[in-house]
Amino acid sequence: MPKRVLVSGTGLIGTSIALALRDKGAEVFLSDADPATAKLAGDLGAGTVVPDLRDAKGVADVAVLAMPPAVVGRELAYAQECAVADVYTDVASVKVLPARQARDLGCDLETYVPAHPLAGREKHGPAAAQADLFLGRTWAICPLPETAADAVDAVTGLAVACGADPVVTDPATHDRWVALISHAPHLVAVAMAARLAPSSVPADALKLAGGGLRDVTRIAAGDSVMWTQILSANAGPVAEIVAEVAEDLAAVARILARLPQGTSVAGAGAGGVTSLLDRGRAGTARIPGKHGGQPRNFTVVQVVIADRPGELARLFNAAGAAGVNIEDIRLEHSPGLPVGVAELSVRPDQVATLLDAMEAGGWPVRRG
Amino acid sequence: MPKRVLVSGTGLIGTSIALALRDKGAEVFLSDADPATAKLAGDLGAGTVVPDLRDAKGVADVAVLAMPPAVVGRELAYAQECAVADVYTDVASVKVLPARQARDLGCDLETYVPAHPLAGREKHGPAAAQADLFLGRTWAICPLPETAADAVDAVTGLAVACGADPVVTDPATHDRWVALISHAPHLVAVAMAARLAPSSVPADALKLAGGGLRDVTRIAAGDSVMWTQILSANAGPVAEIVAEVAEDLAAVARILARLPQGTSVAGAGAGGVTSLLDRGRAGTARIPGKHGGQPRNFTVVQVVIADRPGELARLFNAAGAAGVNIEDIRLEHSPGLPVGVAELSVRPDQVATLLDAMEAGGWPVRRG
Repeated sequence: MPKRVLVSGTGLIGTSIALALRDKGAEVFLSDADPATAKLAGDLGAGTVVPDLRDAKGVADVAVLAMPPAVVGRELAYAQECAVADVYTDVASVKVLPARQARDLGCDLETYVPAHPLAGREKHGPAAAQADLFLGRTWAICPLPETAADAVDAVTGLAVACGADPVVTDPATHDRWVALISHAPHLVAVAMAARLAPSSVPADALKLAGGGLRDVTRIAAGDSVMWTQILSANAGPVAEIVAEVAEDLAAVARILARLPQGTSVAGAGAGGVTSLLDRGRAGTARIPGKHGGQPRNFTVVQVVIADRPGELARLFNAAGAAGVNIEDIRLEHSPGLPVGVAELSVRPDQVATLLDAMEAGGWPVRRG
Repeated sequence: MPKRVLVSGTGLIGTSIALALRDKGAEVFLSDADPATAKLAGDLGAGTVVPDLRDAKGVADVAVLAMPPAVVGRELAYAQECAVADVYTDVASVKVLPARQARDLGCDLETYVPAHPLAGREKHGPAAAQADLFLGRTWAICPLPETAADAVDAVTGLAVACGADPVVTDPATHDRWVALISHAPHLVAVAMAARLAPSSVPADALKLAGGGLRDVTRIAAGDSVMWTQILSANAGPVAEIVAEVAEDLAAVARILARLPQGTSVAGAGAGGVTSLLDRGRAGTARIPGKHGGQPRNFTVVQVVIADRPGELARLFNAAGAAGVNIEDIRLEHSPGLPVGVAELSVRPDQVATLLDAMEAGGWPVRRG
């Protein structure tokens, strides 16, 4: 792990990296285009502020450029001109754009390791930073053909020191991956949510909405301007995936439109619908679940709970006393009534124990 | 509320209705095409089994036909021939199909109230039934032009007795509504999830997946055969909405494909992207939140927790002792590490109290 690190850009991500590395005993220097932001990060204990990179020659083993993708190339050129570090990396959420700008600006690519920690929050700025922000998260390391192996090692060590799980790929592959797992899903959620907006959809229709619709559309509530920038910076890969999704949906819509109105059972023409449904199931099964790697294999137990302080505590106490570990929990609220259903995911071999504990505690249990 | 009810079809929904009405003191009779299923429902305390509807003349104020949409019309004709009740209703998840079949079969439409309680479970059969299945759920009541007002009143009373919130509309409107809030979202989730299935997507790419992708695709894990039948039975309305979603996605894909590769900021051409994002935000804002009606307005507090039995109990105890009601909870797991983040939603005026309680309890709190 690098012993001396310069963090240039002390927003949420930069300051969180600084805090994480300080926790591990590294010497951290801070810099930001806005002196007040750098000072706040310093006051929060993230490191020592360096007012001007010109005065920071050779100060660090690794310099982390924590800023939006569009300005990484320019800042890299400047930091290398000031020779602040042996190795340079960035944390921008797309990688082709900064890598190309670095190349166009004539940066030293041997010491540059494009990277992207998959972590974030809704909040911004150093005050929102957390030393544990990267704990268990994937940190994509995307070396260029020119990048030296020891530079990659240094940045990998930095990611590990932050508690993250490094995954090595290249910028173009990375951008296709985030298009698939983040940018395209955002647009898909948005396109579904957009159907709910027209004034032709009465509020009564939305009263029928269940957890499914809420799940599908949840991320569509994100900031439009920020997301336009993200999508623009990764336009090609996102366009490709979204076009494929649109094509699948249009094909299913055509199949359904051709079926006789109110077909009672799935007719011969519905095979294309089943086929897409099967592909969707196969896709969800590939998403890693808790604790990396394997998809979830938990059993869901439903418990009806009263909506009052202390009720969930009582429930978790009962589960804990029985030695059952709740792997996941979702609350399904009953609109209009002071009760809800807690869906508890537990290992299959703990289901019986949990059910016994719940029933002993007086909760109506759904063996679901 | 009806005093005497016949439930024909003692699966999950039918038996749950029977249990709910028995709890309210109604006299309930049970019937099922499969005698063993009816007997099981009876043994569970759902009511008295009626072996043959021919012997059940005038036995009920309301007869509930709890069976798949394709067979409702036929069963209605038979039940009316046997004159088992004054009023008839069904609970199928689409309404145009059974209503048309009832009309085609010459049923008495004056006493028929098509209806649909918006509740369900993954499990099937009477053993999975619960008296509280409908608590706080919407129950769509979809009278035909011929349906008598007192028949609507009787079925509305039945829905209220089950703890549900009746909403009156008509069959065609109902089917468009469920297409919008359930069937189309399912296909949208499926189409996104289908992109994850191809062998060209390496497992490493999916290691980058966060909560957003999981949310968007969660419901795509449903049974393909069952969903093909649901979508076929409501093909027209689903096709219309899905085609619109496909069109929006295709349009955005075209805009993105035309942007210069790696555009650093949103160019003039990106206006169409922002516009869709804005419509999506507006759509999500219309989805009712907890306790009906108003969208959620809770503040999320993030707490880092260890993944061991009793940890959540300790946390909820601390919250409860401080008088704070947790309105919602989501667990974000850190793949590969034995820690996670609990996102607790609380009323804004309880945030400070909760944060104090969490910090006093030794949990690293993210003021998020």
